[in-house]
Amino acid sequence: MDIETFVERSLGRWRSQRSNHNLAFQHSEEVHSTIDIGAIAPTDPAVTQLCLEQGIDPDLARSPFHMAWKGESDWDDNEISEGSCLLVPVAEPGSNGQRGQLLRSQGYAETMPALGKYRFTEEGVFVLITPYDRASAEERIWFGTPNLRFRVSMIRTSDGQGVVTASFASEIRSSAPAAEVA
Amino acid sequence: MDIETFVERSLGRWRSQRSNHNLAFQHSEEVHSTIDIGAIAPTDPAVTQLCLEQGIDPDLARSPFHMAWKGESDWDDNEISEGSCLLVPVAEPGSNGQRGQLLRSQGYAETMPALGKYRFTEEGVFVLITPYDRASAEERIWFGTPNLRFRVSMIRTSDGQGVVTASFASEIRSSAPAAEVA
Repeated sequence: MDIETFVERSLGRWRSQRSNHNLAFQHSEEVHSTIDIGAIAPTDPAVTQLCLEQGIDPDLARSPFHMAWKGESDWDDNEISEGSCLLVPVAEPGSNGQRGQLLRSQGYAETMPALGKYRFTEEGVFVLITPYDRASAEERIWFGTPNLRFRVSMIRTSDGQGVVTASFASEIRSSAPAAEVA
Repeated sequence: MDIETFVERSLGRWRSQRSNHNLAFQHSEEVHSTIDIGAIAPTDPAVTQLCLEQGIDPDLARSPFHMAWKGESDWDDNEISEGSCLLVPVAEPGSNGQRGQLLRSQGYAETMPALGKYRFTEEGVFVLITPYDRASAEERIWFGTPNLRFRVSMIRTSDGQGVVTASFASEIRSSAPAAEVA
């Protein structure tokens, strides 16, 4: 698996069912959401700008994409969380797209730009580690079938010792990428 | 990671919080349970018997263990599921405990003995695939910290194409193995 293939397989609309585990209290929250992932041209000005903000050569951007989500939690029927961000993978030279950096215009855990490191395991699992000020997020994404994606996320304390929350999402494709539909 | 180390780290009592995702209906069930994992002597008659039933040389058994669980589902307050089984890893000769078979006196998905295949990924994730009559179970277990175990399970249709259910468990150690407590 390489980053170009991984992004290509991820394009489209997904219905996501996520269970968030609070580890200290051992209770959980269910979130249902819709996630749209669409390709962005590497020459898009927003891609260039995000690269330059992080001091990265825009020519190194690979398969940038846009992600938008809209979700409902079982904790509060009225709470609908939604958002979107631009994601720009930057492959490490010589790695054949096996590892590199991921620039994000807005992080999950904090509402500011994030810079994570990704790699693929021998089994094709995408592993992303994103450091934040007081914590780090560790995500693992893999395909069960071409139309089923799994995502396990953990938030670790910044000393790397404790895991505060963990979540598991099953994501089922509900429509093909826009380019294929058209 | 090898099977002896993995079993050793798993010994003790764990509080498990599991989210079962039904993928067709996208609803989920929460199960809280207590899991006790204890070492069994390789020379125990039950180990020998389970090996012989599966046509395996009992001398190949490594780190056999006993597992007992007692759980409550959020679907039915009165439903308490409990059970126990004996598990016997059989290392593949020459694999340094990196892969082999796992004999189980009783499977999760069906109440009959099961014979699965295990291996460890380069990251130390224990992967177990157990074929049943009309389905196969795929489990991945790894440690977030020495006292935190994660387990992702999937049930695939026997043709390997569809995934019917997926579950995620966070398991937190609540006491050390009996031998260390004493």
